[in-house]
Amino acid sequence: MSQLSPQPAGTSLPTSADVARLAGVSRATVSYVLNNNTTVRISDSTRRRVREAAADLGYVPHAAARSLRAGHSRTVLLPAGQAPAGALYQRFLTQLELGLRRLDYTVVRYGGVGQDADEAAMTWAELRPVAVVSPDDLALTPYGIGVLTRSGARAVITLGSQPVDGAHALVVDQREVGAHAVRHLLARGRRSIGVVVPQEPGHALIARPRLAGALRAVEESDADAGVRALPLRYQEDSAQDLASRWRTLGLDAVFAYDDEYAMLLTRALQDAGLVIPGDTAVIGAGDLMLGRLLRPRLSSVAMELTCEQRPAEMIDRLVQNPGGPPERHHLLRPAVVARESS
Amino acid sequence: MSQLSPQPAGTSLPTSADVARLAGVSRATVSYVLNNNTTVRISDSTRRRVREAAADLGYVPHAAARSLRAGHSRTVLLPAGQAPAGALYQRFLTQLELGLRRLDYTVVRYGGVGQDADEAAMTWAELRPVAVVSPDDLALTPYGIGVLTRSGARAVITLGSQPVDGAHALVVDQREVGAHAVRHLLARGRRSIGVVVPQEPGHALIARPRLAGALRAVEESDADAGVRALPLRYQEDSAQDLASRWRTLGLDAVFAYDDEYAMLLTRALQDAGLVIPGDTAVIGAGDLMLGRLLRPRLSSVAMELTCEQRPAEMIDRLVQNPGGPPERHHLLRPAVVARESS
Repeated sequence: MSQLSPQPAGTSLPTSADVARLAGVSRATVSYVLNNNTTVRISDSTRRRVREAAADLGYVPHAAARSLRAGHSRTVLLPAGQAPAGALYQRFLTQLELGLRRLDYTVVRYGGVGQDADEAAMTWAELRPVAVVSPDDLALTPYGIGVLTRSGARAVITLGSQPVDGAHALVVDQREVGAHAVRHLLARGRRSIGVVVPQEPGHALIARPRLAGALRAVEESDADAGVRALPLRYQEDSAQDLASRWRTLGLDAVFAYDDEYAMLLTRALQDAGLVIPGDTAVIGAGDLMLGRLLRPRLSSVAMELTCEQRPAEMIDRLVQNPGGPPERHHLLRPAVVARESS
Repeated sequence: MSQLSPQPAGTSLPTSADVARLAGVSRATVSYVLNNNTTVRISDSTRRRVREAAADLGYVPHAAARSLRAGHSRTVLLPAGQAPAGALYQRFLTQLELGLRRLDYTVVRYGGVGQDADEAAMTWAELRPVAVVSPDDLALTPYGIGVLTRSGARAVITLGSQPVDGAHALVVDQREVGAHAVRHLLARGRRSIGVVVPQEPGHALIARPRLAGALRAVEESDADAGVRALPLRYQEDSAQDLASRWRTLGLDAVFAYDDEYAMLLTRALQDAGLVIPGDTAVIGAGDLMLGRLLRPRLSSVAMELTCEQRPAEMIDRLVQNPGGPPERHHLLRPAVVARESS
């Protein structure tokens, strides 16, 4: 008869041996059941007994010990998902985290603030992840990828505008956002198009490709049109300064980087006496609810991050079959929502 | 002479034995130097030689192995910091992460989406953290705290409105935001005050204490005033519906939960023909830049999260000296920014 009482307070955590004893099975059986190993034939009643014993004892496996035993971990590192473009990534990463958890991975969010890419790769490698999704604001180097791979990572995946040699890529091609905005403005007959470039340093990674996409859209069109970069800080005085030079610049349209900068600039243009969209068409990006409250209502490039294969299953596949050629999957689906401002 | 070439490509990671061989010292010396152990006397030149050898080889310590050896880890779990109130927490958590990294902790962000508190505690315990900061949207139970403590966590700290028995608390008392807003409206002579309560489920944890604080501010005042809860979804039709009933409700002021809901409601009230602040004063919270673009400019409760002791050092102290009584530290510093709307 077992002498174990469930959950003895104040003592150390129960081990898998305790679970085995309470359930009356071997440690191997406990391991098979709790790791959902279905290759070994174990009756449903035994599986249930092991699960109940683990629950009664409050058994917590040790991820570190488990990964040392197994030779590789089930840990996947995801970026913590800071701003900018936070909202766009946040929902995607939350879904990805849920999907990976369902596939029995341990998901760890990693910030990497204040580190360069190689430092970050070293810190990540310390956790011996089996897969790493690297955020856009850290441009992984071949050195960092090597450190991660040699520490046991079977899949290194970048998430963002810039694929990196030797890593898989979930590509969020921000150029498409700029291209969609400018194609829309050209279709509305606008020919002299400003493109807002935020001066806050964190935005450069998104602003640069959006501007490049805007330029490309003009080049690819038959229209005799031009694009001009408009540096802007997210401050009223910066917007007022830009608005005061608007007539001199001779612009008849602006892609304002995103909806927040668009709201800032719209207010300043209206205060400077310009009529929207009569004098100047305005389009943002992100399709914020707040943009619909503007008068005129703000046009915007709506964005979604989706993928043919569910990203969690893709990562699982890359982990199961390492060594294949780097894969590229495009996630960003932009779509113009034309309202009154353009 | 050493046969080791730095960074052999494609092979497995170098071990501390490799570092010891290249530096010509013992493995113990490598361990002392790389763990910044200053209790052992080691010359500066030896320390430098070890560090250079580690850098040349691309040596990455294994956090899991290190924590198994040491008996406890240097891993601190922080919440991933999802919305709502994301912006408020994000800067705080980023600073905390940097501070902990400087103190040589490994910081891991943990989401916990889709898990209940006990499940989350079990998953966290698998990583054997030495300290856990638990987010507001997971109400840790004594059971969960027990699991974490027995798995080696020396400090379990909640971050949010609700302290939990048996854990330290970084208290973000949202009641103070509601109280500040309503005290301001009372001081402006308003007596019939609506308080917006968002209907989106994620907001309940913040909306409830903000409403409670608003009620308390009226109770504590001498004024013959009343507070009324106003359910609102973050949608134009919901705001229009509320605005159409505004005169019947007889409200002369509203604390609109935050600046985004305030912008939504302001637009609907103005479209319904109400004059702000003449008919109704409006105040939000969060002090967003966009609120300043409204006409009239939006009043707001600005918020900051600060602490007498630096939070990273506080956590380090709690880790060094476990077993003390639960500590409470209030982080939220609200301040009314009165503009034109109130």
